[in-house]
Amino acid sequence: MTPDTAPAARRGRLTEDREALLHAAVIDLLREAGYDALTMDAIAARARASKATLYRQWGGKAELVAAALRSSRRGAAEIDTGTLRGDLHELVRRRCGSSVHDAGLLRALGQTLHKDPALMRAFRTQVVEPENAALAAMIRRGADRGEIDPDRPAARFVPHMVLGALVARPLMEDAEADPAYLTTYVDAVVLPALGL
Amino acid sequence: MTPDTAPAARRGRLTEDREALLHAAVIDLLREAGYDALTMDAIAARARASKATLYRQWGGKAELVAAALRSSRRGAAEIDTGTLRGDLHELVRRRCGSSVHDAGLLRALGQTLHKDPALMRAFRTQVVEPENAALAAMIRRGADRGEIDPDRPAARFVPHMVLGALVARPLMEDAEADPAYLTTYVDAVVLPALGL
Repeated sequence: MTPDTAPAARRGRLTEDREALLHAAVIDLLREAGYDALTMDAIAARARASKATLYRQWGGKAELVAAALRSSRRGAAEIDTGTLRGDLHELVRRRCGSSVHDAGLLRALGQTLHKDPALMRAFRTQVVEPENAALAAMIRRGADRGEIDPDRPAARFVPHMVLGALVARPLMEDAEADPAYLTTYVDAVVLPALGL
Repeated sequence: MTPDTAPAARRGRLTEDREALLHAAVIDLLREAGYDALTMDAIAARARASKATLYRQWGGKAELVAAALRSSRRGAAEIDTGTLRGDLHELVRRRCGSSVHDAGLLRALGQTLHKDPALMRAFRTQVVEPENAALAAMIRRGADRGEIDPDRPAARFVPHMVLGALVARPLMEDAEADPAYLTTYVDAVVLPALGL
């Protein structure tokens, strides 16, 4: 490896592969035990990393969990299919495309998110804000193409609608949200609310 | 009290007032400690009732918590303002009218709801199904009055939209859902999705 191709390794950071493994370990442990019972020791053991490395790279459990959650949301910012409907369908497909179900992870964070300011701050900065920015960009492009009116009141509530679909299905229908359900929901709720 | 006016007391059941106090104690404890840490001992102590009474009347913690949650959702079934818009506004106003914030309680139940089949069953039967039936009746009346098309795909997702509004605001905007916010959301999202 030349210095140009491995800047992370040069600076003593984890390689991308190692980081992906570590994030996967955090997600697995979070799902198994919930946030409160999750320890840096358990993460270090599962990911075969030293605790010193974890603290050096992330600062703490809250930041590490937020980084892992962010990495599990596969690139909403890269989506650009040419239509708002296509973008939203692709977004929900990606959300369900991995083994990671957001609703289950949100439940694992549960009350802690609202009682632990460091975790909430990390979650907002690393997960909520990038996701909302990607959604806002989709809507702006749709408005630029003349598909929707950007001043439509529903435009600012798209994240709320999508989150509702994810959280409600297990409660209402005893099933996790899957791509077919979410696509139906986008067509039935999100697009009509946007006037499309 | 004559036997006619106090049938509950005659059968050894709690009076309505006592039951309301007990439900309030359960809700308070649930909010403070979460479901897992909630004990029948703590409920009995807070409500000055015997544990034997609690078990006799409710069967167990799951049923008692579901009954308390149900009682905290003030009569959606009684709402009938004459318009669908009026009904939905009144529903969200009542949801926020007490000190009980559904989103906070849902977080207190958190993961447990999805890991404890007895709790999920009690929650579905006592909270979700009556609430959904009340919403379906509102929508049916709106369709009968010609306000909306009952076959509109969004009609079956109204509970999902309302739940999304409750759950999303604390995450997105660092504030609990209040009546002004929920009324705006009904007008911006729920009614347009229904074509109204």
